[in-house]
Amino acid sequence: MISFLNDYSEGAHPRVLQRLIDTNMQQETGYGTDTFTTAATAKIKEALDCPQAKICFLTGGTQTNQIVIGSLLKSYQGVIAADSGHISLHESGAIELTGHKVLTVPGQDGKIAAPTLANYLKDFYDDDSRQQMVFPGMVYISYPSEYGTLYSKQELTALAAVCREYHLPLYIDGARLGYGLVSPEADLTIQELAQLADVLYIGGTKIGALCGEAVVFTKNNQPDYFYSFVKQHGALLAKGRLNSLQFLELFTDNLYFEISRHAVQLALQLKQGFLDKGYRLYIDSPTNQQFFIMDNQKVQDLSQQVLFTRWGKYDETQTILRFVTSWATHAEAVEQLLTLI
Amino acid sequence: MISFLNDYSEGAHPRVLQRLIDTNMQQETGYGTDTFTTAATAKIKEALDCPQAKICFLTGGTQTNQIVIGSLLKSYQGVIAADSGHISLHESGAIELTGHKVLTVPGQDGKIAAPTLANYLKDFYDDDSRQQMVFPGMVYISYPSEYGTLYSKQELTALAAVCREYHLPLYIDGARLGYGLVSPEADLTIQELAQLADVLYIGGTKIGALCGEAVVFTKNNQPDYFYSFVKQHGALLAKGRLNSLQFLELFTDNLYFEISRHAVQLALQLKQGFLDKGYRLYIDSPTNQQFFIMDNQKVQDLSQQVLFTRWGKYDETQTILRFVTSWATHAEAVEQLLTLI
Amino acid sequence: MISFLNDYSEGAHPRVLQRLIDTNMQQETGYGTDTFTTAATAKIKEALDCPQAKICFLTGGTQTNQIVIGSLLKSYQGVIAADSGHISLHESGAIELTGHKVLTVPGQDGKIAAPTLANYLKDFYDDDSRQQMVFPGMVYISYPSEYGTLYSKQELTALAAVCREYHLPLYIDGARLGYGLVSPEADLTIQELAQLADVLYIGGTKIGALCGEAVVFTKNNQPDYFYSFVKQHGALLAKGRLNSLQFLELFTDNLYFEISRHAVQLALQLKQGFLDKGYRLYIDSPTNQQFFIMDNQKVQDLSQQVLFTRWGKYDETQTILRFVTSWATHAEAVEQLLTLI
Amino acid sequence: MISFLNDYSEGAHPRVLQRLIDTNMQQETGYGTDTFTTAATAKIKEALDCPQAKICFLTGGTQTNQIVIGSLLKSYQGVIAADSGHISLHESGAIELTGHKVLTVPGQDGKIAAPTLANYLKDFYDDDSRQQMVFPGMVYISYPSEYGTLYSKQELTALAAVCREYHLPLYIDGARLGYGLVSPEADLTIQELAQLADVLYIGGTKIGALCGEAVVFTKNNQPDYFYSFVKQHGALLAKGRLNSLQFLELFTDNLYFEISRHAVQLALQLKQGFLDKGYRLYIDSPTNQQFFIMDNQKVQDLSQQVLFTRWGKYDETQTILRFVTSWATHAEAVEQLLTLI
Repeated sequence: MISFLNDYSEGAHPRVLQRLIDTNMQQETGYGTDTFTTAATAKIKEALDCPQAKICFLTGGTQTNQIVIGSLLKSYQGVIAADSGHISLHESGAIELTGHKVLTVPGQDGKIAAPTLANYLKDFYDDDSRQQMVFPGMVYISYPSEYGTLYSKQELTALAAVCREYHLPLYIDGARLGYGLVSPEADLTIQELAQLADVLYIGGTKIGALCGEAVVFTKNNQPDYFYSFVKQHGALLAKGRLNSLQFLELFTDNLYFEISRHAVQLALQLKQGFLDKGYRLYIDSPTNQQFFIMDNQKVQDLSQQVLFTRWGKYDETQTILRFVTSWATHAEAVEQLLTLI
Repeated sequence: MISFLNDYSEGAHPRVLQRLIDTNMQQETGYGTDTFTTAATAKIKEALDCPQAKICFLTGGTQTNQIVIGSLLKSYQGVIAADSGHISLHESGAIELTGHKVLTVPGQDGKIAAPTLANYLKDFYDDDSRQQMVFPGMVYISYPSEYGTLYSKQELTALAAVCREYHLPLYIDGARLGYGLVSPEADLTIQELAQLADVLYIGGTKIGALCGEAVVFTKNNQPDYFYSFVKQHGALLAKGRLNSLQFLELFTDNLYFEISRHAVQLALQLKQGFLDKGYRLYIDSPTNQQFFIMDNQKVQDLSQQVLFTRWGKYDETQTILRFVTSWATHAEAVEQLLTLI
Repeated sequence: MISFLNDYSEGAHPRVLQRLIDTNMQQETGYGTDTFTTAATAKIKEALDCPQAKICFLTGGTQTNQIVIGSLLKSYQGVIAADSGHISLHESGAIELTGHKVLTVPGQDGKIAAPTLANYLKDFYDDDSRQQMVFPGMVYISYPSEYGTLYSKQELTALAAVCREYHLPLYIDGARLGYGLVSPEADLTIQELAQLADVLYIGGTKIGALCGEAVVFTKNNQPDYFYSFVKQHGALLAKGRLNSLQFLELFTDNLYFEISRHAVQLALQLKQGFLDKGYRLYIDSPTNQQFFIMDNQKVQDLSQQVLFTRWGKYDETQTILRFVTSWATHAEAVEQLLTLI
Repeated sequence: MISFLNDYSEGAHPRVLQRLIDTNMQQETGYGTDTFTTAATAKIKEALDCPQAKICFLTGGTQTNQIVIGSLLKSYQGVIAADSGHISLHESGAIELTGHKVLTVPGQDGKIAAPTLANYLKDFYDDDSRQQMVFPGMVYISYPSEYGTLYSKQELTALAAVCREYHLPLYIDGARLGYGLVSPEADLTIQELAQLADVLYIGGTKIGALCGEAVVFTKNNQPDYFYSFVKQHGALLAKGRLNSLQFLELFTDNLYFEISRHAVQLALQLKQGFLDKGYRLYIDSPTNQQFFIMDNQKVQDLSQQVLFTRWGKYDETQTILRFVTSWATHAEAVEQLLTLI
């Protein structure tokens, strides 16, 4: 069986693993005071050209979203997200657990269009009964989106401008950040992204790490006593080195982007191969997740030899499929898959 | 100025006030252990033909929704409501504050259609990723709805059947319950309603009381230690008599329904008067809230002599207006209004 | 049976009731925007000599503590209270429900001594592991305390000084505020109290109102969007007039203090009577709650004719009793009681 | 510098690291559905002789305590712990964040004595005002305690009996479980411990893993939808393999106990060495944490060559020190230390 199930099926990228091995006996203090945290923070600040950033290493994506959003919102505020946003749908109510509403706006291919946000906010502030409504307190987007799509520089700049106008922090969920930034269709650098965002997280789990996400408050805007907040949420590891060390390696010699580039190249080959064979895209993704429509019978056959995700029913006779690549995907696997379809 | 602003502009219905006067010096024990609570509970159980019901008197509607929903849901569950539901929009995130998501389904004239609910639930249980989603744990509806509309017996029976099928408690927000039950278009009795619901609350604040809502767990399904839960939410009054006594009077000699009937009769006269003068309904409500469309210039003129609510913009030149009647509305006020429009 | 059970056994003081009657048909807007709220706010600001105060009328004491404390603390902070404090013991975990720890310090007769607080804070800030502890965020005291005792001006000034030194708001629970201020042993005026506190609440329920507590942020320090916070906690009444109107009357012609003086005078007569008959005080209270030690057999006899509270076991043969007076207590009842003991 | 700072200064035990290396390329499904989870679960069930146990692998101790306690308590309940308990003092209010009070009882050397618990519970159920108090809902202890001390079989059996009598689940925090079980003073086996507990967690982070704690519901008492609860708390790792795999290795060929034995042997040598040199114990610990009293000047000198923890001030001239051993501690380091003191 060859697998395109997801980008977290294996352990760590060999270089990340090697770094764990090399440093295993090095003694470090706990709870995020280790020297790897200092070094990784410096690397990331440099990569993002954000000298004033504050960085915190957490363990998983839902945890990160919960902590960032929970720490930034006031009690009476909610977070705006696309209706397809991960926090809206697939985090088991982790945001609501912190007492906050996810305020959904209609997404377009997984993205929030600036005019959609502007209208939402205008309507809210025009509404005489807004005192009894949840106040918008920040905006959440994902880059790439849950459908693998990307904001253009123009789109994100426009969205950020609306956020600034209403004094709403813009938070970017970058669980798969690298796969977006290296896409041939991306016209945004990581520095520009950091500039447009108020907070973002750089995903490690899905880009070569065993675990770990790096939260970056880009504008010297990390809430006071953030580490106490993290501890209170059960997210401060005694061996904080585990998360920071992996990021130290990922941001050494561009590994993070190399991994991303490898996966996206294979994903785009895979996409071209499907298109060449006449398959239709369910959504046109330029990153490491690809979505196709396939006849149910063909799906059945293919599933004997390939692992992938049935994303949903397209119609009575066709299914939407998702194929995902990662650092661990071999070019041969893509070729094999293309011969099978 | 004559007022059709809402149904809570005055104090208490004179009979309710008189009861407060008559019993003022009677000594009672606190925190809901008073004899009025016992007596009012008996009256309501009789009126609803629910001998096994458990009843608790609370102070306001948002508080009641928060406590009922918070006490019935498990942590990983949310409450299904129409997108126009009061808990979805106008309670400042009181449900989310308890850690639970409001799962919205599209409403029709403020109501949830049984097939809409059934499809939502079927889709949820068909979804392979539901382990990472918020599980539906109960269904919230309002009777009458936020638009003054009513479920027919058939509609509510169908909805309750879906709830039963999925083992979801059905909770009816009856902030304006009386105005629904006495409407000429209502084909449901309060006993039938109590039978179809698992929990409901009988609104007092908007139907003649100074404050107070009566929560009825109709199926011997009040959560254990419910009073501790109520206390923990700051909702257990030392002078619990205040809420229960008012309900005792409201459920003596049918006062609750008399008040409701008076208001609905005037509302329907008002509606007919508007229709006779050629105004269009925004929504066809058979209860004490009426919604019309009016030219902006006319709205401006009318607002010099009448208090009402601008519900929203209909289009560039017209506004949606809401007029509400109550026990305190005089027939003359309706006549005056009709001459003014 | 004559009753000394508590100070909330009857309805409202006759003058408060009369005001409800007189204003019943007056039309007012909802949710705290009524003219009574404006008028009562002005009266209280004048009485406290706090022109810059912000005042909000809530319904009960636990609700008030929950909302004030919840709105002032940051997530990682807790509230310091005496181990005997109402929020520590008798509010069913209402503070913890908001996510905050009650940090207890040993009380002395229900009060926190300034050196006790200073030591607690010094130890906390000297502790290297404080990053993993709950940060003290405010100080809660009650005046009178749960044992009816009072802080002297000197004691409260010293306590407030410690609070200022550590930038901790000082919050005074005044559920029975009037009974403290009018005590012959009190050397604090309400104006001085307001000056020393950062927030306090003036209790209505236990001093003549049907319900209602007035929260006073004395230093222009009411949190932003406080009304949304109140709504979110289910504490914003549609008929907000109910609470504010009662305070308007209580603060007209000194009624609040008249009621308090009446009760305290009777309580002190009762205390003197017990002492004259040789009973021992459990605690020496100068306010409307009195605590005595009585032989179990005598308690049994007395309970046939008088209602009071068994506060706890003193030893194997004696019980601690609590007797409470209020506006509704008659001088004759005190005399009767004294002849019975 | 030689270090006795804590038991989490290095990475993973070499065998655990090797297992991560060996399995790195193995493809596994996510979120706890991996084959390592299945295998590790089987190993632990066997080791504990608990065929009916349910096991869940989490990442850190505070997270584990928060999730276990939050999932077992009803809203109106709190958790009983010793005043020195980790959840009482050093988890930044993580339990209160879930809405629950930590109900403290006085500890003895970090332990709760059965009669202390029994008295607390008797007093609670004898108290007429308990309806307004937080109900005890479970009991939390740590084994070894925060001071390294151990419950004897008799002590733990008595404590568990009180828990059973009051239907309270007994939860054992085993952050350092192994160090307790292998101590020469321990008279409890892991099977007996599992029998006496209703839930326990086996700590990995402090006993050789990079991260990871194994929660064991020993009595088929894992709450329904526990994984949704875990996800909602941000604690479900995409690469769930990371935690489970490490436990698989730790429970292969007794590695968990070998690691523990190594550390405890060195700790006891260290203790004997200190005693031989005339130092006094602050507390008599039979496990891998040792507490001594030392003159301040000597502390100052020693700190130039050895890393340890200043636990607190003993008196004006002496300090309490903590020395901790682990799998990574060398016998030579203990010898060196003993020559230095």
